[in-house]
Amino acid sequence: MAMVPPIDDEGATPEVRAVFDDIRRTRGVERINNFWRVLANDPASLRRTWDSLKSVMAAGALDPLTKELIYLAVSIANGCQYCTASHGAAARRLGMTKEMLGELIAVVGMASQTNRLADGYRVPVDEGFENLF
Amino acid sequence: MAMVPPIDDEGATPEVRAVFDDIRRTRGVERINNFWRVLANDPASLRRTWDSLKSVMAAGALDPLTKELIYLAVSIANGCQYCTASHGAAARRLGMTKEMLGELIAVVGMASQTNRLADGYRVPVDEGFENLF
Amino acid sequence: MAMVPPIDDEGATPEVRAVFDDIRRTRGVERINNFWRVLANDPASLRRTWDSLKSVMAAGALDPLTKELIYLAVSIANGCQYCTASHGAAARRLGMTKEMLGELIAVVGMASQTNRLADGYRVPVDEGFENLF
Amino acid sequence: MAMVPPIDDEGATPEVRAVFDDIRRTRGVERINNFWRVLANDPASLRRTWDSLKSVMAAGALDPLTKELIYLAVSIANGCQYCTASHGAAARRLGMTKEMLGELIAVVGMASQTNRLADGYRVPVDEGFENLF
Amino acid sequence: MAMVPPIDDEGATPEVRAVFDDIRRTRGVERINNFWRVLANDPASLRRTWDSLKSVMAAGALDPLTKELIYLAVSIANGCQYCTASHGAAARRLGMTKEMLGELIAVVGMASQTNRLADGYRVPVDEGFENLF
Amino acid sequence: MAMVPPIDDEGATPEVRAVFDDIRRTRGVERINNFWRVLANDPASLRRTWDSLKSVMAAGALDPLTKELIYLAVSIANGCQYCTASHGAAARRLGMTKEMLGELIAVVGMASQTNRLADGYRVPVDEGFENLF
Repeated sequence: MAMVPPIDDEGATPEVRAVFDDIRRTRGVERINNFWRVLANDPASLRRTWDSLKSVMAAGALDPLTKELIYLAVSIANGCQYCTASHGAAARRLGMTKEMLGELIAVVGMASQTNRLADGYRVPVDEGFENLF
Repeated sequence: MAMVPPIDDEGATPEVRAVFDDIRRTRGVERINNFWRVLANDPASLRRTWDSLKSVMAAGALDPLTKELIYLAVSIANGCQYCTASHGAAARRLGMTKEMLGELIAVVGMASQTNRLADGYRVPVDEGFENLF
Repeated sequence: MAMVPPIDDEGATPEVRAVFDDIRRTRGVERINNFWRVLANDPASLRRTWDSLKSVMAAGALDPLTKELIYLAVSIANGCQYCTASHGAAARRLGMTKEMLGELIAVVGMASQTNRLADGYRVPVDEGFENLF
Repeated sequence: MAMVPPIDDEGATPEVRAVFDDIRRTRGVERINNFWRVLANDPASLRRTWDSLKSVMAAGALDPLTKELIYLAVSIANGCQYCTASHGAAARRLGMTKEMLGELIAVVGMASQTNRLADGYRVPVDEGFENLF
Repeated sequence: MAMVPPIDDEGATPEVRAVFDDIRRTRGVERINNFWRVLANDPASLRRTWDSLKSVMAAGALDPLTKELIYLAVSIANGCQYCTASHGAAARRLGMTKEMLGELIAVVGMASQTNRLADGYRVPVDEGFENLF
Repeated sequence: MAMVPPIDDEGATPEVRAVFDDIRRTRGVERINNFWRVLANDPASLRRTWDSLKSVMAAGALDPLTKELIYLAVSIANGCQYCTASHGAAARRLGMTKEMLGELIAVVGMASQTNRLADGYRVPVDEGFENLF
């Protein structure tokens, strides 16, 4: 169903295998999702994407669950079905409850509605919305 | 610059004025943003949108700041300039720091990148991503 | 502000001038919008786009105003600011009232909201939604 | 296939059941679509979304079929597969013919094309496209 | 699974058949993709779309493979699954290698990421980015 | 006009300055675009984004101009105004002619149109569009 076949552990080059191992260690899971197995057809892209993702999603000013909720919300807004499914599961593992999911989707829906109202009425930006910091 | 002129307090019907008052009370601010003043040209839509927004954004399983961060992230993903500006300011009022904004935008960028990778490779959804609850 | 400068009547080649004349005749207006003047930098694209547009927007099973309302709605959903402005003006010329605009934007907002709810919950397509005709 | 399981009539709380009954009454149909059954996992969201939808889609300055056509067009532009399927079926029930569907999709395609042309050439907004009413 | 059934060769009117023949001749393939067979339900749209596509995709200042790669990239960015699949196959026929596909998807992902960064930070357009020619 | 102020050379930390210098060296230009100056408010994001961009956009199976054209096309499709302006200028520097720009925008428009036709008709994916390599 994909553009290129997924790479399983046997077919992985040492370079790819090193990324798979780092994913397993970092996330504490054994399973490697289809996303990484398909991306492994382009080892440089696999390495670059995983390194960026690990860095961006690490705890910082925002905690990991909040980051994962934002990730899921953006995936819904972008209409990416795979991403909505996989980051829904990831947020669940990090503690997202059914009530939190319900509220998250409600916010995404509300934002998308008012986004269209603002765009449709061509609302001019208010003074004071610049250089917040 | 808008499709219809903003409605100021003098031009507001009692119905519109009631919503403006509720916005001021709920948010503890005096200023009514352009969004609501433009939307006031359609009083039924103003009432419906404000009532839904107030309900969706109230504290629940997710706290108000987390909801506002999700709202901002979705507005960026949808490419809505007004909404990015206004919800950036709203999140700032609720305590978003410069570091939090930086990490939020990084997550939105990362999600948009991997969304395209998943779509581009047509990655099939993994088993086990259904009925999370 | 554009990628290429707009072409005025004096700078128009006979090929471009012929399209400008056809736009004036078909729409019964003297002014040629910036869209066509910028597109005139690529005469083949100007001709192809105008011919397709004239054919698609002509009265058929849907009347011209309904078509223009759909056009405006899609431009809002796509976040195209120029198109929202220009097709708002076009719909106005064809008889769109302020109330109709308000309801149209409300529908666009509502659809965008429920689109995200359906995407977010990953709602499976119901049986019976195929081959409607 | 969904994030949460659909709620059938037996599993519906009285609050959810009341919305289901109102949907059946308002639309004159017996079947409740998957969208509402999945949304029923979050009863407050179900009630809010249905109430807004009923209000937004009621006859007004625009008749119900025109509203449904706009809804369908936006769902296509947003790339929401479930929504395109369900609102295609809804428009069909309200009288959309095969010719109307063909013209609608042609307008959506045309608008999406010219949206990209306007965005790509960065066409500046013409004077006179403001405050239409 | 479609809104309307695909039209096979037997069910094709002479008008539709002429377009099918032109597709076969122009592309040097025997198979007519589902896209054209479904579009054939609206013969005017089939003719208009095929004529535009043939003209837009013909060799010019950009060679056919470069055009097909751009087409594929846009389809991924628009989240159109059918189009990503069919234009992936078309680019393959024109000589796209697995490495080229990997780099193309990486560019699409990178662009989508920086698009969100620019939108999220509301970066002002630099002087000197106007009227490039 | 931005969410955070641009960082000029004087205000740059050594870490930020090192990235600015690498941008100047790699591109052979003196000017640092607003994008990088705004991003410099989050030095880790600046470094990560520039490193990824430099790697993704380097010559490989696709030459730099082709990659820049794909980047520009995706920016148009995503409706990112800053990115369309800045990558239009970048492609111009790499040799894009006015005719190439015209054809590129025409392909983006055409793809967006047929994307909506495929989505609107819900065209099923043809057999043989899987695992292209």
